[in-house]
Amino acid sequence: MAALILYYSSGAASMSSHLALEEVGAEYEPRAVKLSENEQRKPEYLAINPRGRVPALVLEDGKVLTEATAILYYLAREYPKAKLLPDDPLEQARCLEWLAWLASFMHIGFQQVRRPMRFVGQNPDYFQAVKTAGMQHLRGGYMDIERRLGQSEYAVGDSFTIADLHLYVFFNWGRAAGFIAPAASPNLMRWGNKVGARPSIQKVAEMESVKILK
Amino acid sequence: MAALILYYSSGAASMSSHLALEEVGAEYEPRAVKLSENEQRKPEYLAINPRGRVPALVLEDGKVLTEATAILYYLAREYPKAKLLPDDPLEQARCLEWLAWLASFMHIGFQQVRRPMRFVGQNPDYFQAVKTAGMQHLRGGYMDIERRLGQSEYAVGDSFTIADLHLYVFFNWGRAAGFIAPAASPNLMRWGNKVGARPSIQKVAEMESVKILK
Repeated sequence: MAALILYYSSGAASMSSHLALEEVGAEYEPRAVKLSENEQRKPEYLAINPRGRVPALVLEDGKVLTEATAILYYLAREYPKAKLLPDDPLEQARCLEWLAWLASFMHIGFQQVRRPMRFVGQNPDYFQAVKTAGMQHLRGGYMDIERRLGQSEYAVGDSFTIADLHLYVFFNWGRAAGFIAPAASPNLMRWGNKVGARPSIQKVAEMESVKILK
Repeated sequence: MAALILYYSSGAASMSSHLALEEVGAEYEPRAVKLSENEQRKPEYLAINPRGRVPALVLEDGKVLTEATAILYYLAREYPKAKLLPDDPLEQARCLEWLAWLASFMHIGFQQVRRPMRFVGQNPDYFQAVKTAGMQHLRGGYMDIERRLGQSEYAVGDSFTIADLHLYVFFNWGRAAGFIAPAASPNLMRWGNKVGARPSIQKVAEMESVKILK
């Protein structure tokens, strides 16, 4: 009975935690939380994560860890053989820099586009302005990512890390939403297609019914 | 010249990085970026951090590290004697859980209140809806913090960590904005007044001309 339990939503930012569990070879049980049915706000889920957000990882002893940044870091530390975190403290901090920026800037941009009511309440007259501002942030954000990646093979240093795992979620979202086009984003395309070929991504995409875009 | 350089704005979320530099006893030069004069968008600062955000920490070799989460983690790792990060990987992840949530939920709430244009563009007709939604998030957020802190002396485990440093910024913001009242938030008040007595906070508050509220 020692398995971890991951609460996730299909195609949500929780996907990187799901990917990490596959990458490290952990024994885990995935449990879907349907955002479309507002399950993250139901008492059963709030008993797991009172903040009503995914992902949440239930550890062997029943403790619950939330926030993708924390879960990715924890799994990388607990399963060091998978080498998802660099040894160098500065490179570790660089991974956190990516994760923090993706969560506070890029993810908020997508929330503006997808759930404008979070930012202006229920009056639909305001929604378009929220979406337009979100799209503008995202366009700038993807240009920023393109520039930062440059010719690098991975987001941080010379190896695949938790930063790549989380960035991949935003690669797939950006492809689906039209923010990443081959001509304008050669670095992101090269990086995304390489990372997207990893078995963990193929497997989790199938489990979550997420279409992987190339 | 081997000193670190911190780019910060008075009273902004960069204050926790400033506090950390004092806590670890690093040799550093603080450089103010005036958000009121939009200095974070000027070419001089964009050359340091193209994302136009504070904090940014320039390392001894000229490399630049951004995002409070990354800077706090880096300083804690580079100056282990200050013991700002627990030894246990799960407790380290708990610190990151606090930092990630503060950055993506609480900080966004304050941005809605302070800079609604970020979320709806320049039409002031929309600003009040953004502020109202932000206030609602923040009220819930401070209740959440109150509950999570409970009777604990510190945010994570039995010792003072980078989670307390960043949370302190939100304590002071919450006091100033009226989200934290002694009667409703006894845990936060007890915690905040204890942490607020640390010499680092007294010193940085003076340097940044921030009023420390009790």
